[in-house]
Amino acid sequence: MCPSPGTGAGERGYVIPIGGAEEKLEHPTILKKFVGLAGGKKARIVIIPTASRLIDTGPRYVKIFEDIGVANAKFIPLETRADCLREDYLELLHQATGIFITGGNQLRLSTILGGTPVAQAIRRLNADGMPVAGTSAGAAIMPEHMIAGGDSDTKTPTEDGVTLSPGLGLTNSMLIDQHFTQRNRLGRLLTALSFNPFVTGIGLDEDTAAFINAKGEFEVVGSGVVTVVDPSKLSHSSMGSVRQGDPVSLFGLRLHILAAGDRYDCTTRTPVSAD
Amino acid sequence: MCPSPGTGAGERGYVIPIGGAEEKLEHPTILKKFVGLAGGKKARIVIIPTASRLIDTGPRYVKIFEDIGVANAKFIPLETRADCLREDYLELLHQATGIFITGGNQLRLSTILGGTPVAQAIRRLNADGMPVAGTSAGAAIMPEHMIAGGDSDTKTPTEDGVTLSPGLGLTNSMLIDQHFTQRNRLGRLLTALSFNPFVTGIGLDEDTAAFINAKGEFEVVGSGVVTVVDPSKLSHSSMGSVRQGDPVSLFGLRLHILAAGDRYDCTTRTPVSAD
Repeated sequence: MCPSPGTGAGERGYVIPIGGAEEKLEHPTILKKFVGLAGGKKARIVIIPTASRLIDTGPRYVKIFEDIGVANAKFIPLETRADCLREDYLELLHQATGIFITGGNQLRLSTILGGTPVAQAIRRLNADGMPVAGTSAGAAIMPEHMIAGGDSDTKTPTEDGVTLSPGLGLTNSMLIDQHFTQRNRLGRLLTALSFNPFVTGIGLDEDTAAFINAKGEFEVVGSGVVTVVDPSKLSHSSMGSVRQGDPVSLFGLRLHILAAGDRYDCTTRTPVSAD
Repeated sequence: MCPSPGTGAGERGYVIPIGGAEEKLEHPTILKKFVGLAGGKKARIVIIPTASRLIDTGPRYVKIFEDIGVANAKFIPLETRADCLREDYLELLHQATGIFITGGNQLRLSTILGGTPVAQAIRRLNADGMPVAGTSAGAAIMPEHMIAGGDSDTKTPTEDGVTLSPGLGLTNSMLIDQHFTQRNRLGRLLTALSFNPFVTGIGLDEDTAAFINAKGEFEVVGSGVVTVVDPSKLSHSSMGSVRQGDPVSLFGLRLHILAAGDRYDCTTRTPVSAD
């Protein structure tokens, strides 16, 4: 799904995928920057804990945002597709100045939210300027094409190495993977990219975020790196002919390692240094 | 150290780094191909088990090569630098048609063999046509610059993420890392490359080898992939200015994933497909 056109009245809001395990207590750099974009102390943050099966995930993030200084942080317990029709929850979303989607299982997010008024609201509100942040599963759900699962660790690219699913479609210029270095996910991101190399692959380390602005440029924030794999100059791929389980050949990928402060323009596919 | 010029009488022998854990029993594809280059059934293979502290490593590989059909396989137990002066061992090397260096700790190899007549003999014999294969630590020792150690797993590139040491210098066009996908070593290979991006980085998966010929081209053999990182077009690196422990930015790397049958020309930095 392409990003919503929204009302076209203003600039699109930031899309902020976070690689999971973001620092929450001592130096919550990423969360603070998100709160700043959402209005600072006057922010009204709505938390969507649907990906998580832990009942304290919502209340926990409320406390985290309150500790950062946000006066108004609430979670909406969307546990079923029926919950995603509730007017009171939709009203909370419309009154918010920022939306935060927690980690867990991205397939819970997509199966519960997908196609509902809540998903539609998130898409439209973001198009009209509201920043939307998500960590881990909450980051995975953001693009048009979501990495739903696949092999982490010890895996080279293979035809069956990844499962894709439709995502929220807040961006359609990238594929996002998270816990990237920590879970050795280069292989599965390469697999996902090789299916149709029109997007850019974004591998987010833990405690690391990409703050994507309305122009499709992002800045790296956090303690790890963002691994950008640009397959647009791919000169050879054996994905179309390889036997199931056999490793896939991919020639001519471009690779950029971006640390805090570095930026990347997804349209021109150009990295810009923090220096 | 640059590769030995040898006598210049013939073609340089194959250099065959293997990523460790090569298949030894059912389908020893890599070892068989090495034996073929060393003369097949008439091969005289000398095994150097120095990297390993296990006393059965030498005899074990003798048995493995015998099972492949090699009539003459011997190991030389080089345990000390004094052993590397022994005329009988040097004589065995000169009578060999192929040399195999086992896995273990590459710093044992470099500290025991480095600068001795044995190291000199391996370099000269290879320059004059003898194939030299090595697995894991035996692969690491081959280039001019050896990855002696560093962080595997969960590591982005950092200034202190890798330790380099002088290697045997059988090739000076590449840096080699092994157990590559299995141990998540992209970060440390990138660190090593970033110090001075004049070489190509070769990440060898387990049960996967690069057969490097006299022209500096290699073919991939085995069940995994070879990850080639070409930093020659690097447009930005923060390695010179980054604080210790902080992640390093690297823009403009080229990345190729090569599977069995694919080839790479280290001189022109061009991959060629198996198709």
